[in-house]
Amino acid sequence: MKQVMIVRNDLKLSKGKTAAQCCHACLGSYRKADPEKIRKWSNDGEKKVIVKVNSLEELFEIKEIAKKNNIPNYLVKDAGRTEIPRGTFTCLGLGPDEDEIIDKVTNDLKLLG
Amino acid sequence: MKQVMIVRNDLKLSKGKTAAQCCHACLGSYRKADPEKIRKWSNDGEKKVIVKVNSLEELFEIKEIAKKNNIPNYLVKDAGRTEIPRGTFTCLGLGPDEDEIIDKVTNDLKLLG
Repeated sequence: MKQVMIVRNDLKLSKGKTAAQCCHACLGSYRKADPEKIRKWSNDGEKKVIVKVNSLEELFEIKEIAKKNNIPNYLVKDAGRTEIPRGTFTCLGLGPDEDEIIDKVTNDLKLLG
Repeated sequence: MKQVMIVRNDLKLSKGKTAAQCCHACLGSYRKADPEKIRKWSNDGEKKVIVKVNSLEELFEIKEIAKKNNIPNYLVKDAGRTEIPRGTFTCLGLGPDEDEIIDKVTNDLKLLG
């Protein structure tokens, strides 16, 4: 079981801003997840993985695939107080869900270093 | 209303690792928070702020003050799969709670850029 946060690397957000966007994605997707899967994920150590894409198009594409696969997901639109214009889509949260299910969607994506 | 994640800057974690630690702190503290305060925070846009400290001692000190002020809090101990030794305390989540209550504990801390 895992949760994956997919960050737009092309926005070149700072470390703090990136972390805040991931927190929004994490919590948003968590609240849409199946309680039984949350329980399994919790027992499993609540693995969270942060990966990156290089464009808004990629982020939208992944959201569509997640939707088709019934993976709980949450797209973050920034309030725009700092660094980027209001309404910018920054990050997508997926899961928690089974590794195999999430890997179908995110396996090609590189970790955010 | 806000939630604050306090990151140990002395560990020099990568952007992705920092984000993952903040997600653990965010979700951990969220689950300890008062439902009525969560509701107010949600209506308010779910503000999340990422700040930094420079040592484990500072992190522990803030946790103690949060505890004394009955602020929901969650200390993250890393599983140690990457970057740092297993069991390292990396991050503290506070709230959601009233701004004035959290500011008493975190107001001196600098934003993580």
